[in-house]
Amino acid sequence: MTQHKSKGNKLVVIGGDAAGMSAASKVRRENPEREIIVFEKSSYTSYSACGIPYFISNTIPDINELIVRSPEEFREKYDINVHIQHEVIQVNTKEKKIKVKDIEGNKEFWESYDQLLIATGAKAYCPDVKGYNADGIFGVSNLRSGVKVEKFIEEEKPKKAVIIGGGYIGLEMAEALLIRGLEVTIINKSPQLMNTLDPDMGEKISEAMKGLGITVYCGEALNYFKTKDNKVIAVVSENRTIKTDMVILGMGALPNTGFLKGSGIDLGVKNAIKVNAQMQTNIEDVYAAGDCSETLDLTSKRPTHIALGTVANKTGLVAGSNLAGEKSVFPGVVGTAVCKLCSYEVARTGLREKDIESLGIEYVTGTIDSKTRAHYYPGAKDITVKLLAEKNSGRLLGGQIVGMEGAAKRIDVIATALTHNLTLQNIIDLDLSYAPPFSPVWDPVQTAARHLIKSI
Amino acid sequence: MTQHKSKGNKLVVIGGDAAGMSAASKVRRENPEREIIVFEKSSYTSYSACGIPYFISNTIPDINELIVRSPEEFREKYDINVHIQHEVIQVNTKEKKIKVKDIEGNKEFWESYDQLLIATGAKAYCPDVKGYNADGIFGVSNLRSGVKVEKFIEEEKPKKAVIIGGGYIGLEMAEALLIRGLEVTIINKSPQLMNTLDPDMGEKISEAMKGLGITVYCGEALNYFKTKDNKVIAVVSENRTIKTDMVILGMGALPNTGFLKGSGIDLGVKNAIKVNAQMQTNIEDVYAAGDCSETLDLTSKRPTHIALGTVANKTGLVAGSNLAGEKSVFPGVVGTAVCKLCSYEVARTGLREKDIESLGIEYVTGTIDSKTRAHYYPGAKDITVKLLAEKNSGRLLGGQIVGMEGAAKRIDVIATALTHNLTLQNIIDLDLSYAPPFSPVWDPVQTAARHLIKSI
Repeated sequence: MTQHKSKGNKLVVIGGDAAGMSAASKVRRENPEREIIVFEKSSYTSYSACGIPYFISNTIPDINELIVRSPEEFREKYDINVHIQHEVIQVNTKEKKIKVKDIEGNKEFWESYDQLLIATGAKAYCPDVKGYNADGIFGVSNLRSGVKVEKFIEEEKPKKAVIIGGGYIGLEMAEALLIRGLEVTIINKSPQLMNTLDPDMGEKISEAMKGLGITVYCGEALNYFKTKDNKVIAVVSENRTIKTDMVILGMGALPNTGFLKGSGIDLGVKNAIKVNAQMQTNIEDVYAAGDCSETLDLTSKRPTHIALGTVANKTGLVAGSNLAGEKSVFPGVVGTAVCKLCSYEVARTGLREKDIESLGIEYVTGTIDSKTRAHYYPGAKDITVKLLAEKNSGRLLGGQIVGMEGAAKRIDVIATALTHNLTLQNIIDLDLSYAPPFSPVWDPVQTAARHLIKSI
Repeated sequence: MTQHKSKGNKLVVIGGDAAGMSAASKVRRENPEREIIVFEKSSYTSYSACGIPYFISNTIPDINELIVRSPEEFREKYDINVHIQHEVIQVNTKEKKIKVKDIEGNKEFWESYDQLLIATGAKAYCPDVKGYNADGIFGVSNLRSGVKVEKFIEEEKPKKAVIIGGGYIGLEMAEALLIRGLEVTIINKSPQLMNTLDPDMGEKISEAMKGLGITVYCGEALNYFKTKDNKVIAVVSENRTIKTDMVILGMGALPNTGFLKGSGIDLGVKNAIKVNAQMQTNIEDVYAAGDCSETLDLTSKRPTHIALGTVANKTGLVAGSNLAGEKSVFPGVVGTAVCKLCSYEVARTGLREKDIESLGIEYVTGTIDSKTRAHYYPGAKDITVKLLAEKNSGRLLGGQIVGMEGAAKRIDVIATALTHNLTLQNIIDLDLSYAPPFSPVWDPVQTAARHLIKSI
């Protein structure tokens, strides 16, 4: 409950989603009297962007269910001065002020700050190719874009969709559009879907997606979009032209940091904001958190950019804690992610083979097939676990899971093991839970470790 | 692949289930030429005793599905000389020989060994009260007893069952008999069901069981059994007489070590065989593994007795490895266990409040309610997580989970954290997986850690 005394007291937060509002709420809890102003470009605060594919698929009928707290709630219950429809377009760190554009009022003004938190998130990446600005091309990185996609489907009744990029968002959107009855094609630059996994595991996902009736073209990049009356009508790749009524961009996320040009704030990987473990930028009194900032990969010890809700919430909380005068650190990530695709589950953590190779570490890999429950228990589903470990030491370097119901959450044990530098033997020795409805007597993660330890 | 050279080569294993056959198989893999003899009292080898309740409930229709490998398979494919229906009744460690009773042939003989592994498992505990030997009273600690229960239900068509003891086996059998249409009553000595959890978490299970239509009498001990024509007809507790057609014993497991009297082999907790981390007893060339042996509790640093398939498989493998001349250790357990009861899931690991108190450690506890998925995602179920941690340091000491589908396996992260001495802050910092179908953005385990860290 230490008040931040050494500095002026006005906190300005740019961005009103997970990281920004986690931080603002934390500061309010610790500093009940402090002035807190939030500028948010859209009309929404504190929502679950990860829920958008499930809104599009109508699994979640009402988009308001994705909103954790509204701007009104923050204003009234938390005394946080949230301005929606306000975009910050410039930061002057020397004079400690920011230039704000009131979108509805169509005016601009300068706002001063004593401490600043940048939490502007990331947007769907699209290369600057012919037609990229046409109607019918959508990113789904925020709630506004989710609403746009839903509106487009309702009003334009598209029959075909092309998804560019076979990562989490691309695949979740493929599922969503399939559920909505569209004919779905994915084009993907790398040779297999889910480039965050090794190609051998990605191949399983490519096969699974084809089995669901999705057309998958891997190993071919986007060339440009064909348009008519500024509407997208086809995607042209290196090898083919695919007619379509709409396009979803799933080529990754780019930090929203363009407005920081000239601010003196250092950018790093993918132009994400460089921060230390306290979420401080190189400029005093300027912090950053969430999808617009870099984070440390604990396994490679290299900076990385991870646009995920878990990291945004955690880094937001740590930034808020430090802004409130406490001392908190965010140690970093191991890159854990999980994804459901119809009846398939995919999970990954740590380094891929190519990451390990780039670090020059000698390694071994092993993959096993097992079941999610005792083989004789009804509902036992397939699970494939791949582990990657350092040669000789057996130190775990990464893990990947593809399977069906009950498979993916097992990645958490691997993530915990990775974070604390456990070896394959340590994993074998873990006292993991077992009963026939939950697992074989050797959990598949341990079976994978038992298999791989023979190779080290 | 080191052959065991310094000793004579004949390995005798007493007990042909998980621990014994894991060890024998491991020795066979490493020492292809070695003589291996197994004596097993029943007619079965290498089966899943944990699957018995699901056989009784007809969830698994064929008991053979519970058998991993038959005696014939071991003889023919593994060249392991398995003798079923052979009970070992005496061990002479001075002369390195054992006395074996051939049950079918009704004769006894002595067998010599160079190395001996004792893996005789455990049996259902029953106090020596009036009527305890009557027909209709069953333990379910091995496959033979499972077959007996099934036969009894088919032939005698019992309408009422009383289960004595509200631990895992008691509750799983309550579910099974409920599914078979019996009227089920549980009597339990401690004030709440599931004494391996703290009473506040056990209370949730008592409530859940009552909700399923099971009659639960807690806080009352068994006095004796009423019998007629040597059949059980009622259970008499301190407070009441409960008429019944059958009784299931769920009062815990006792190591099968009575035949070791006079052998010089040291026994410990509950008369389980004392072993070191290599699974060696105090007598040279005599090893023990599985439910008949002690193990080390890593959190309390005290010996304990855990009769679970996971531990039996692991200690069997370690014993086998050492018997084969390798060097392996079994570091110990944190006491992880999990259980499904109709739609409820229960899991626990580490120390309970009373365990911590007995160690004189200052501690804090905290319990949170959360959901198994994002709150808006269909199928999000209730989950309650309790964590126990050391005061000041925040070092994790234990965890307990009660919830519905998707709740229980989260105990594995807590078990991993416990094993490696992680703190609540370490848990908060973990990069656990998140997507709406799998978890809230803060996994319930982390939410529990965030809640509890305020108290340390």
